[in-house]
Amino acid sequence: MNFSSKLIEQSVEAFASLPGIGRKTALRLTLHLVGKSPETSEQFAEAITNMRRRIQHCTICHNLSDEPICQVCADKRRDRSLVCVVESIRDVMAIEDTSQYRGLYHVLGGLINPLEGIGPGELTIDSLLHRVASQKATDGEIREIILAISPTIEGDTTMFYITKKLKDSPVSVSSIARGVSFGGELEYADEVTLGRSIVARVPYRLNND
Amino acid sequence: MNFSSKLIEQSVEAFASLPGIGRKTALRLTLHLVGKSPETSEQFAEAITNMRRRIQHCTICHNLSDEPICQVCADKRRDRSLVCVVESIRDVMAIEDTSQYRGLYHVLGGLINPLEGIGPGELTIDSLLHRVASQKATDGEIREIILAISPTIEGDTTMFYITKKLKDSPVSVSSIARGVSFGGELEYADEVTLGRSIVARVPYRLNND
Repeated sequence: MNFSSKLIEQSVEAFASLPGIGRKTALRLTLHLVGKSPETSEQFAEAITNMRRRIQHCTICHNLSDEPICQVCADKRRDRSLVCVVESIRDVMAIEDTSQYRGLYHVLGGLINPLEGIGPGELTIDSLLHRVASQKATDGEIREIILAISPTIEGDTTMFYITKKLKDSPVSVSSIARGVSFGGELEYADEVTLGRSIVARVPYRLNND
Repeated sequence: MNFSSKLIEQSVEAFASLPGIGRKTALRLTLHLVGKSPETSEQFAEAITNMRRRIQHCTICHNLSDEPICQVCADKRRDRSLVCVVESIRDVMAIEDTSQYRGLYHVLGGLINPLEGIGPGELTIDSLLHRVASQKATDGEIREIILAISPTIEGDTTMFYITKKLKDSPVSVSSIARGVSFGGELEYADEVTLGRSIVARVPYRLNND
């Protein structure tokens, strides 16, 4: 691409350094900002630098947070006996969007992946074990750890590791239910999901049971 | 989407205000920046605010430029007798990328579109006419105006308007060639292009003519 302006080129390079944004899109975004007032660009830049400068990880659950303790951990109305263990903040948001879960979280920050050099030490597993062990410190007794982790090789390894570490602890460890999705047609479900959902069948209960 | 952090939310809103970026993509970009150093975000923001604060329109051709006169207009080696009239800076870049044109440009900043309230007054047509009329001021005699404008209803209107305004001027007005693209198969060309390319046929010349 042939830029007649160094300033435009620098802005395009900046946008194109973001994942999934190519140079054509970067140029479109740059020209969009040129078409708006300078204040619009200032506000845009301010929101991003401000976020990056002030964002921190919650000291309890490692979720991204504005304060040393995140909104979820600080919320006294939430059920402090449940801790849902997830890979990333994206998973926290997905679960929060369902409005079905009122417990706390623990964000691992990744999954055990020896091929990429990510061992348990790189994740927040020690922090989770410490959280379970020092119950008094987190005001409230953790009774159940819910593993909401993808059943990939890395996910299975991570779940296996955490479960093994918690074997002698009094908390129970559960995993989210997997099977054919609600409203999903059997013929369109993938073979592994359908096969496992038959093996892991549950007793059928009437709604008014 | 349920954000546990106001800072993340503000950054996502900022990205999502750009065209073609939804909230999911905005979150991905935000989390990408969280994973990088604060300096990366500062530099990203700096490139954009710096660009927006300092960018200006060339006083001669209205192209975006770092200086009052853009690189193309300032380049003494370019052919100052040719002026290519285009809709936007994107078209300038597309033509520059071909390396086939060594003349100057004139960026209209849009096309005449009465439905959206864009008349000739909103565009830089007066500036173009002035450029042609006051030849001395632009050091060099403009001999030809090349219209490189899309043949849409708005484009045709704009070309018609400019041509009519330049009727009594000594400059000749041309339009870029249109037809079946080089290397294009006839059967895949659209009907309008193919039809017009037959009507507007040109004498066949051997290469060594």
